[in-house]
Amino acid sequence: MRATIIHGPGDIRVEDRDYPGVQLPTDAVVKVAAACVCGSDLWPYRGVKPIRRPTAIGHEFIGVVESVGSEVTGLKEGDFVIAPFVVSCGECPQCRNGVTVACDRLAGWGGKDDSGNGIDGGQGQAVRVPMAGATLVPVPGVSDPDEALRKNLLTLSDVMATGHHAALSAQVSAGRTVVVVGDGAVGLCGVLAAKRLGAERIIAMSRHADRQALAKEFGATDIVAERGDEGVDKVRELLGGILADSVLECVGTKESMEQALHSVRPGGALGFVGVPTGGAEIPLRYLFDKNITVSGGMAPARTYIPELLADVLAGKINPGRVFDVEMSLEDAPAAYKAMDERRAIKVLLAP
Amino acid sequence: MRATIIHGPGDIRVEDRDYPGVQLPTDAVVKVAAACVCGSDLWPYRGVKPIRRPTAIGHEFIGVVESVGSEVTGLKEGDFVIAPFVVSCGECPQCRNGVTVACDRLAGWGGKDDSGNGIDGGQGQAVRVPMAGATLVPVPGVSDPDEALRKNLLTLSDVMATGHHAALSAQVSAGRTVVVVGDGAVGLCGVLAAKRLGAERIIAMSRHADRQALAKEFGATDIVAERGDEGVDKVRELLGGILADSVLECVGTKESMEQALHSVRPGGALGFVGVPTGGAEIPLRYLFDKNITVSGGMAPARTYIPELLADVLAGKINPGRVFDVEMSLEDAPAAYKAMDERRAIKVLLAP
Repeated sequence: MRATIIHGPGDIRVEDRDYPGVQLPTDAVVKVAAACVCGSDLWPYRGVKPIRRPTAIGHEFIGVVESVGSEVTGLKEGDFVIAPFVVSCGECPQCRNGVTVACDRLAGWGGKDDSGNGIDGGQGQAVRVPMAGATLVPVPGVSDPDEALRKNLLTLSDVMATGHHAALSAQVSAGRTVVVVGDGAVGLCGVLAAKRLGAERIIAMSRHADRQALAKEFGATDIVAERGDEGVDKVRELLGGILADSVLECVGTKESMEQALHSVRPGGALGFVGVPTGGAEIPLRYLFDKNITVSGGMAPARTYIPELLADVLAGKINPGRVFDVEMSLEDAPAAYKAMDERRAIKVLLAP
Repeated sequence: MRATIIHGPGDIRVEDRDYPGVQLPTDAVVKVAAACVCGSDLWPYRGVKPIRRPTAIGHEFIGVVESVGSEVTGLKEGDFVIAPFVVSCGECPQCRNGVTVACDRLAGWGGKDDSGNGIDGGQGQAVRVPMAGATLVPVPGVSDPDEALRKNLLTLSDVMATGHHAALSAQVSAGRTVVVVGDGAVGLCGVLAAKRLGAERIIAMSRHADRQALAKEFGATDIVAERGDEGVDKVRELLGGILADSVLECVGTKESMEQALHSVRPGGALGFVGVPTGGAEIPLRYLFDKNITVSGGMAPARTYIPELLADVLAGKINPGRVFDVEMSLEDAPAAYKAMDERRAIKVLLAP
């Protein structure tokens, strides 16, 4: 089969790999229907995260179950499934608490399972899925989704689940005022998640016309292009002299974290899902003085998929709109380049 | 009147001061029935917080309204009242959001109001209370509480409200497992607050027999005397291999914050009310990796008093048990010494 392999910074290749098979009785093999490139795939691509050896890459995919091991429950051949961005067991205390991303047997696509067997990356034609019954979510009544549905389902792998996690972490609920820092696919999904949870006012911080437009389509009531103190002042002005009840941080840099923190009103909440890079810190005394809640981390997508899926299937949300470019798997190098140069919000790869 | 004045580190004196009167139409004057010494009063006493000039001290008191200004609503002469540990207006966005400690017109006992008029400290015979209608909480049907009730009411000024804030910030609710770091009056009230909110398992971290006993009386199911990694291991052992859902940090040092943070399970919450001192920090990456929520700060006592008062009056909680020593106001210097040397959990001062 064909699969995307990262060899080093800027060096993405699509290569031949053995077609995967069931190795453990709890495995399934999924034929990939669609995959995509994530903002976090750009770190190794940009050399921020070191690459020691050629590694299969990609952690968001949907597809059809081709074969299942003898101990897999809840899945059968032909099921159309969503893969969350990590592998989890569903049985440990962390999974039972819904924190599947802290699973005792956590494994990553392109990595190894706890038996030491390699796991395929998501940007390929097929993937061996460990602990498949716990990891994968079948889509009821769907065997061959159309393009729009395919895009919607694919966002549940990561970006829509992550935007939802940011909104929940920021305690968004009916009537709250919200600021979203970051206009990538996750930030845009954060806008949609905040709208879905009933936010009254949603301010999207964005400087790009296409992303501003999508933010408005997703439910943003206001756009703020200013940054730093100017941005904070603008938020305060829009909200009648006070800051936001809930702020979603969807970038992960020092600057974006400061922007987010300074946009929260006393007693409000900051939900952060941007992986912390570049020395982002939380000044404890500031939290104490303002009574600000900070929450977030990797989204337990596996936990959230069922409720988000129900809304997708009911036509209530269309997160798939974040895909503005579609390419063939063979064009993965070009897809990375488009994302890296911010020419695309999010690129779908069709195997 | 007689009032407690701090002159410098270790230098507490009880001196004569002018008896206060109504200065602004929103003022009331309260004759103090009981006051007390707070752990945070020990910072200037220990020289941790500088003292520029002799300053009236004390921020926890209860008493009887002696006179009210012409614009005070909701209070009348003879009302028995509880004073929260700060003065707030009740009208600004922060107060309306319940975050009275971030009030736009916030003032402190022993400080100045926003008209520049001095405010008496709580450890004295009488206090001028600015914005009295918003600040004070009258106790319905009580004009002369007995000793046990007086102690209970006095804790609502600060320590019981603060313990409750720690528990709410740590997301304590029915069935949760809880660790409380700190066995001072606030930590002990945190145990009581967690029990009141329905926690299933409450582990109090304490090394002092008298405090351990009171923690158990307040609802602690387990005591852990170990600290550091040993303490964390003990918590994990008691909870069947996982850490706590909710952890209350009630000290404010670097060590106590680390103890607390490392006692939270993935996806759990840390509520902190110990004023951060000594370089306490929150490592953002640790929060992200573990999906831990951090929340806390100064307790909005004014917001919490009504519901806690209802439980006190109904005999459901007895937070006043934290007072293990009672002294005359004239003995304030000895009261500070007893608290400083940890010979007393909390000292009540009778004017």
